[in-house]
Amino acid sequence: MTTDYVHGYSTRESERLSDQAATLTDLLHADTRYPAGTRVLEAGCGVGAQTVTLARNSPRAEFVALDVSATSLATAEAAFRRNGSANVTFRQGDIFDLPFADASFDHVFVCFVLEHLHQPAEALRCVRRVVKPGGTITVIEGDHGSAYFHPDSVEARRAIECLVELQRLGGGDALIGRRLYPLLTEAGVHEVRVSPRTVYADGSRPGLQDGFTRKTFTAMVEGVAEPAIARGLVEQSAFASGVRDLYRTAESDGVFCYTFFKAVGVR
Amino acid sequence: MTTDYVHGYSTRESERLSDQAATLTDLLHADTRYPAGTRVLEAGCGVGAQTVTLARNSPRAEFVALDVSATSLATAEAAFRRNGSANVTFRQGDIFDLPFADASFDHVFVCFVLEHLHQPAEALRCVRRVVKPGGTITVIEGDHGSAYFHPDSVEARRAIECLVELQRLGGGDALIGRRLYPLLTEAGVHEVRVSPRTVYADGSRPGLQDGFTRKTFTAMVEGVAEPAIARGLVEQSAFASGVRDLYRTAESDGVFCYTFFKAVGVR
Repeated sequence: MTTDYVHGYSTRESERLSDQAATLTDLLHADTRYPAGTRVLEAGCGVGAQTVTLARNSPRAEFVALDVSATSLATAEAAFRRNGSANVTFRQGDIFDLPFADASFDHVFVCFVLEHLHQPAEALRCVRRVVKPGGTITVIEGDHGSAYFHPDSVEARRAIECLVELQRLGGGDALIGRRLYPLLTEAGVHEVRVSPRTVYADGSRPGLQDGFTRKTFTAMVEGVAEPAIARGLVEQSAFASGVRDLYRTAESDGVFCYTFFKAVGVR
Repeated sequence: MTTDYVHGYSTRESERLSDQAATLTDLLHADTRYPAGTRVLEAGCGVGAQTVTLARNSPRAEFVALDVSATSLATAEAAFRRNGSANVTFRQGDIFDLPFADASFDHVFVCFVLEHLHQPAEALRCVRRVVKPGGTITVIEGDHGSAYFHPDSVEARRAIECLVELQRLGGGDALIGRRLYPLLTEAGVHEVRVSPRTVYADGSRPGLQDGFTRKTFTAMVEGVAEPAIARGLVEQSAFASGVRDLYRTAESDGVFCYTFFKAVGVR
């Protein structure tokens, strides 16, 4: 049921995800803390970009970090041996067929996963099954339709649309952030509260311009040049202009905005 | 130098602006407080939608609320007599030719004004002239390119683009929010800090869906139907579909996002 992972599994991609995690840690994680002794599932841990932060912020909770990809899990475990504490167990498995009994976790955390799935609401139903009554489900997703910038650029917008289109062709949804409330509600999750988390980078924040505008977002767009051109979504020169215009928004008089959405609900 | 005011001067428009002010007061104003005895210019007070809040939040500061339109000023003064305190003087005048000596105010506040001007950086330079050294300049603007929603709709996006295009034809810029940092910096304002203020309305916040999605944003788009169709920007039926789709985003499974930008800098 999982889809082709649009960003691929290269080393550069792993580095990009680590840069992204460093820049965004506070924005996305600061208000997630799990009590001592609770058992938490991270469903879809990927290369472990969020796992290190999760485990560090809740050092006395016990995490099970699950992913469908053995390659990603191996990367995650290696990173964890370098940076992590001892409260995480890694496990291979499918979010649609979780190898756990009903109500076997106190909480579940799902970050940058639903955007890649054909059936995100079904994934949430599967996840909900393994949470104890009263436990929480936390979901974080981006939304590429939330990206806007100065100077504005038709080609830059087109390059971003290529990424959205590729993700759609792979069965995912790069505009899923805005849909978290109805998705969780539809999956039977209660008391859902969604908060937007906007990354705003202007010339007064050169570190954020570098860490996010250049190295996270634009690098991600740049990374799909080959499939976007191969599938005929865009001409090579137009895509290159779009990427150049995105880098332009990280100069001292440029501005870049992007919004993540964080949802927390109760089983 | 001022432009045609795209939203017009009708009674319904005055009511829309009052609804908007009520819903957005906290989001936009909560962190603006002027000390007792300071003299503050509100440049471009319009119908006084922000003036009442400004004056109430800083009851011991003295405000001068200026606008180029005598009609708007009359509405503002009438509203103020109903709701306001005694610390505001209204005055007619042009932001590009302010009837005040250099450095005659401690602070200046400018809200939803620059978007309507041909030369927003020049307006900021004019405003800066009348602020004392060390005084602050606060600017708030929206950005219609920050609007996105669920369910997504090509027609709804097109209807919003009509509003952006009409404002551009009138010499304004409905996408100005994202540009506040470079604009203020270019105008010689120092230590500029910009913060995005996102209105996020989903089914858990029916009051916000009603007050903002329906009565503020969609009503504003709906309000330009006539000029948008008259100028040939869109077919009547497509525009009507777009407006219907915007109202759709205020239902219980709909989501609407819009971002304002607030900048504070030092003269």
